[in-house]
Amino acid sequence: MTHPLRFTLLHRDRSSAARRGRIDLPHGAVETPAFLPVGTQGAVKAVTPAQLRETGAQLILANTYHLAVRPGADVVREAGGLHRFMGWDGPILTDSGGYQVFSLAGSSRIDDDGVTFRSHVDGREMRLTPERSIEIQNDLGADIIMAFDDCAPYPASPEEAARAVERTSRWAARSLDAHRRSDQALFGIVQGGVHEDLRRRSAAEILALDFPGYAIGGVSVGESPEEMRRVAAVAVPLLPPDRPRYLMGVGAPLDIADMVVLGVDLFDCVIPTRHARNASLFVEGGVVKIRNQRYERDFGPLDEQCPCYACRGFSRAYLRHLYSRGEILGPVLGTIHNLTHFQRLMERLRRAIEKGRLLELAAAMRAQALAAGPEGEEPVGAS
Amino acid sequence: MTHPLRFTLLHRDRSSAARRGRIDLPHGAVETPAFLPVGTQGAVKAVTPAQLRETGAQLILANTYHLAVRPGADVVREAGGLHRFMGWDGPILTDSGGYQVFSLAGSSRIDDDGVTFRSHVDGREMRLTPERSIEIQNDLGADIIMAFDDCAPYPASPEEAARAVERTSRWAARSLDAHRRSDQALFGIVQGGVHEDLRRRSAAEILALDFPGYAIGGVSVGESPEEMRRVAAVAVPLLPPDRPRYLMGVGAPLDIADMVVLGVDLFDCVIPTRHARNASLFVEGGVVKIRNQRYERDFGPLDEQCPCYACRGFSRAYLRHLYSRGEILGPVLGTIHNLTHFQRLMERLRRAIEKGRLLELAAAMRAQALAAGPEGEEPVGAS
Repeated sequence: MTHPLRFTLLHRDRSSAARRGRIDLPHGAVETPAFLPVGTQGAVKAVTPAQLRETGAQLILANTYHLAVRPGADVVREAGGLHRFMGWDGPILTDSGGYQVFSLAGSSRIDDDGVTFRSHVDGREMRLTPERSIEIQNDLGADIIMAFDDCAPYPASPEEAARAVERTSRWAARSLDAHRRSDQALFGIVQGGVHEDLRRRSAAEILALDFPGYAIGGVSVGESPEEMRRVAAVAVPLLPPDRPRYLMGVGAPLDIADMVVLGVDLFDCVIPTRHARNASLFVEGGVVKIRNQRYERDFGPLDEQCPCYACRGFSRAYLRHLYSRGEILGPVLGTIHNLTHFQRLMERLRRAIEKGRLLELAAAMRAQALAAGPEGEEPVGAS
Repeated sequence: MTHPLRFTLLHRDRSSAARRGRIDLPHGAVETPAFLPVGTQGAVKAVTPAQLRETGAQLILANTYHLAVRPGADVVREAGGLHRFMGWDGPILTDSGGYQVFSLAGSSRIDDDGVTFRSHVDGREMRLTPERSIEIQNDLGADIIMAFDDCAPYPASPEEAARAVERTSRWAARSLDAHRRSDQALFGIVQGGVHEDLRRRSAAEILALDFPGYAIGGVSVGESPEEMRRVAAVAVPLLPPDRPRYLMGVGAPLDIADMVVLGVDLFDCVIPTRHARNASLFVEGGVVKIRNQRYERDFGPLDEQCPCYACRGFSRAYLRHLYSRGEILGPVLGTIHNLTHFQRLMERLRRAIEKGRLLELAAAMRAQALAAGPEGEEPVGAS
């Protein structure tokens, strides 16, 4: 199957494995390293596509499982595909649904052919197989789609993890066979849990299938930050340098910086959007818990340096008021800000790679996060 | 006290009492008849000021009671006033708090000097008098502020209603005396419940105090639509033709059209914003209950004629999906649409007055609403 993805490596860091690149896709270009906001149900929570665009987002993620449950892949296909349905004309990536059928769906039963589970919305029995996952993703029409994988739970015994690796390899081959659209790039996923030998085996088997991009799955599933880092340190260097590398479900700003150092190109995480709904707003080196009484008469912007709509037009005191009173506008402005904060972080990381200052920046971020913020904000640690 | 308001009558309808005018205020001009979106707590629910501006809104309402409870008038004053606090640089009107202390606050006790009540947020005892209401409204800094009134409950005995009228007149005089800012226009409020003689008496007493604008209060408080219309038909013609006339808390589109015919210039109502949060979206002649299954595969816009962001970029199917899944973006887009719908209604009413076609338009609206909408939407009746 031909694919539409072109990955251009623009700059390699001399002091680390980091790379600065660009991914060209049918709906536009993505400067890497890039952060993907999560639009679980075909909407990045609380923001319009216009506001999302203004945050600097280029590529966004949507969840195959959620869209298959509601409104259904057929509805999205009939709407003209996900881009048109959700009003986002930039690049989209859909995941395979493999992770969600275990973490969200009820009483899922896995067999070598696929997974049977109950919808978390109405309990209806549904089934995903590699063929069905790819068919749904073909219907959704994202620029990048993911092979259907078996994401072992955490913790998993070596035997369970090995079985998941075997299935993931077989399902990757079936995903490739099932894929029908040459305007979508299908990525492979490396599994293996926290087991280094399994990561090596999975990488070898998945790479043999020759995908235009590779993801590391099975991280951010409950393991400790140290384990995540150890796994990534093993798995990322196994991936071919000429293809985009995607670390699924990661992460907090410090994690992202450290993983960029390892050579990761793509990240997705619900942290900025979820934190915004929980009144945790990112500033350099930490988060502001905006409901705190201390912001009652703080008439300065959330972040003096931030060019986002929330920081240009409103004070901490007003944001606190909105959140405290349960106004929808609170999470809306908070999401705009947090997503802008993450995109600005990616921009800083990209510039730092270009200027040979990435390790410096990552070290400075770590030092800053270890200290309390300038106004005593809670530091944001890894994960 | 001098005031900053200039009211220009641009056109009088020959077939009715309707007028087309413009109110110039410190923060801009308001074309009348005008509809004021309600920003209860210093935010029009679910939309940013930028989105609100795009709906065509010129003048918005904020609630003195709510802002006095949270975040407090002192916080808003220290923030530089309400315009700056909420990021809305257009004209604002604040109500007096009189209505809310009875309808929302707990165990309110009224005496001839003012009202003691408990905050609906934390139960703290608070007190509003004409002097305190005006002081708060001076702190908030709206372009138009309202005299502190006694809004009798519905139903009220003639004695209760008469007492409320007497207090409203005395409190209006005290409000005038307490007012300290020449850059704010203080409006008087006519009370009198559903009692015609009391409406006449209240109007005579309030008009004698010479306010730059007049409101009819004590409507939309539980009386039937017919009673509201009867009261308005009595009260509106009592108001001087050279001052803006504001019918508080009204209303649904048909009510607005009929009240414009009577010569009302200003309206406020939570209907468009509240309906949007309840998934009721306005189209010509009715509302679309967007959660309805029938919209699952309706890939056309909510309203073909509507130029709003929601109608330009998204389908009924997508809006239904957002609302059904509890996405914040549903109410956001719905609010943008409903507010735009109301502003477009006002624009049509203004054009109809200019062209001598107001009665025709009002009749057409009534006929359309009596029939089911083109796709079986529920018609929206009066109130």
